[in-house]
Amino acid sequence: MNDRFLRALLKQPVDRTPVWMMRQAGRYLPEYRATRKQAGSFLDLCKNPELACEVTMQPLRRYDFDAAILFSDILTIPDAFGQGLYFEEGEGPRFRKVIRTPADVESLPEVSMTRELSYVYAAVARIREELAGKVPLIGFSGSPWTLATYMIEGGGSKDFRIAKQFLYNHPEAMHLLLGRLADAVTEYLSAQIEAGAQAVQIFDTWGGILTPPAYREYSLHYMQRIVEGLKQEGKPDSVPVILFTKNGGQWLEAIADTGCHAVGLDWTTDIQGARARVGDKVALQGNMDPSILYAQPEVIRAEVQRILRDYGPGPGHVFNLGHGITPGVDPEHVAVFVQAVHEFSTAE
Amino acid sequence: MNDRFLRALLKQPVDRTPVWMMRQAGRYLPEYRATRKQAGSFLDLCKNPELACEVTMQPLRRYDFDAAILFSDILTIPDAFGQGLYFEEGEGPRFRKVIRTPADVESLPEVSMTRELSYVYAAVARIREELAGKVPLIGFSGSPWTLATYMIEGGGSKDFRIAKQFLYNHPEAMHLLLGRLADAVTEYLSAQIEAGAQAVQIFDTWGGILTPPAYREYSLHYMQRIVEGLKQEGKPDSVPVILFTKNGGQWLEAIADTGCHAVGLDWTTDIQGARARVGDKVALQGNMDPSILYAQPEVIRAEVQRILRDYGPGPGHVFNLGHGITPGVDPEHVAVFVQAVHEFSTAE
Repeated sequence: MNDRFLRALLKQPVDRTPVWMMRQAGRYLPEYRATRKQAGSFLDLCKNPELACEVTMQPLRRYDFDAAILFSDILTIPDAFGQGLYFEEGEGPRFRKVIRTPADVESLPEVSMTRELSYVYAAVARIREELAGKVPLIGFSGSPWTLATYMIEGGGSKDFRIAKQFLYNHPEAMHLLLGRLADAVTEYLSAQIEAGAQAVQIFDTWGGILTPPAYREYSLHYMQRIVEGLKQEGKPDSVPVILFTKNGGQWLEAIADTGCHAVGLDWTTDIQGARARVGDKVALQGNMDPSILYAQPEVIRAEVQRILRDYGPGPGHVFNLGHGITPGVDPEHVAVFVQAVHEFSTAE
Repeated sequence: MNDRFLRALLKQPVDRTPVWMMRQAGRYLPEYRATRKQAGSFLDLCKNPELACEVTMQPLRRYDFDAAILFSDILTIPDAFGQGLYFEEGEGPRFRKVIRTPADVESLPEVSMTRELSYVYAAVARIREELAGKVPLIGFSGSPWTLATYMIEGGGSKDFRIAKQFLYNHPEAMHLLLGRLADAVTEYLSAQIEAGAQAVQIFDTWGGILTPPAYREYSLHYMQRIVEGLKQEGKPDSVPVILFTKNGGQWLEAIADTGCHAVGLDWTTDIQGARARVGDKVALQGNMDPSILYAQPEVIRAEVQRILRDYGPGPGHVFNLGHGITPGVDPEHVAVFVQAVHEFSTAE
């Protein structure tokens, strides 16, 4: 098996820097758009293990990526809690039911994530079979705080005013909600690992909108609980955990202290400085601005080279974008990107 | 005159921490909405010195703020360049003409900001008269990079893909544009100072979407040119310059090195750590999350106290929000906020 990705996460030496892309199975690929059409809605695609497997495999047929990532959505857990997830075409996710009061939190049903989200584990198992050991498979979940923002706002938001108001006016109910979500995420990731996920990533898309103390108390704390929970459940260290807080560059030391194996960086953080700050504690994943993929090939190549040079020699780097690839990117530019990581990381 | 604000910016001792709010003259105030209606469009209000003066004064009649800020828009300069600024109701700013090619940059007309933006200086002079020395008046401008993003995108953007594509594919044309804008901003702020502005703030709303090297080269560099330009034009050190890059918390040291007098902090940066990082070089302005104003009074008071405590004793702090106040805030909550800054900063 190509285990560069897993080795890099564990800070073991590799022959070249492994690379994958957040949202690599996505709308920039015409074959994805075709399968999506066949499936019906985006959610239909997530809930169909066969088609979810198909779109997971698509980017690997085109590009020499060092990891596959389960095709799914970060909002499967709130959906399992009965919030009624749906997507409006061209809009973001929406929920039919929202949480607006402490009573709404208290009346959240008891739900077995193992039972309710079996379509996800079926997809994981199927993808592992299809991958046949070619590259490792990454499972994932949204972070408790990120899930909570959607559950309270009822969808995406510009300033997360309702979620923040809930946090500040009802801190106990917020902790209750986040505790429920942390338990659900732990169960969910455990089940993904049992089904075959070889690494897991927690997407904390909205941790970066908080103040430093609120981030530690309401987002990081619960991610740490998940990391510890997975260890207590006997999930081996050979299944690394990656924490990714977008706009979390100022809090790297604290993130690295959770016991996770790797920290995702968006593009606003200097990776050289980041490496010095976290020391030997964790590997780093990132950190190219996805917008660079809209630039000319020589610009893409120069930026890949800069980031590899900034990280410097030695193990512990997984190359990635600092956020998901966007739908308008030319698939040819992705080929340039992957090729550049291979070329420049072998040379150095 | 109440000169707490100016003294704090120059790191001189004050009897209590001065406070003002970004967008303090704004839609959360019913009297603002009434004047806005009377004026016609938002832009009509900006271009009417008498009414611009009126809305500048409104928050000072309600609250004991330590500074007034000129009511205007950051996009007056692109408008003066003939881009045709307008506002769609409920949407952000838009331009009739956009910059999409290097040729568009080269054909940008020669414009005297002193002549073209005389309505701004008229408002400044009128506000100074009306203030009658009560508190100092802040002038402002958008940063060259922030202005460029709007001029290229033709309005706001989610990922600034077109502006970044221009930057990466046409770096020379981008530098030409930013140089033109830096000259325009220098002339604009000079004229505001001559008309009576006693401090100036540069709003770099979108510097934080760049990679660290792109931020230094395309945003910070041009703000530094403005700081140096104002000094060369003999603008005295008694007219402090505040630089505010939203999401710029990772680059504070570099911002403080520009020669500016103060650095604005959004709410994601720990102000205690920020103070240690910039040392005696600059004052700090900020850094309460504007969303806190939606919380209960006791939460607002606790957060004010936390930030004051985190900054610690000694001069050099101007209390502010980490971004503009939003339209839905209850004006009573602003009173609680201002009162808390007074109370807790006097006590410590």
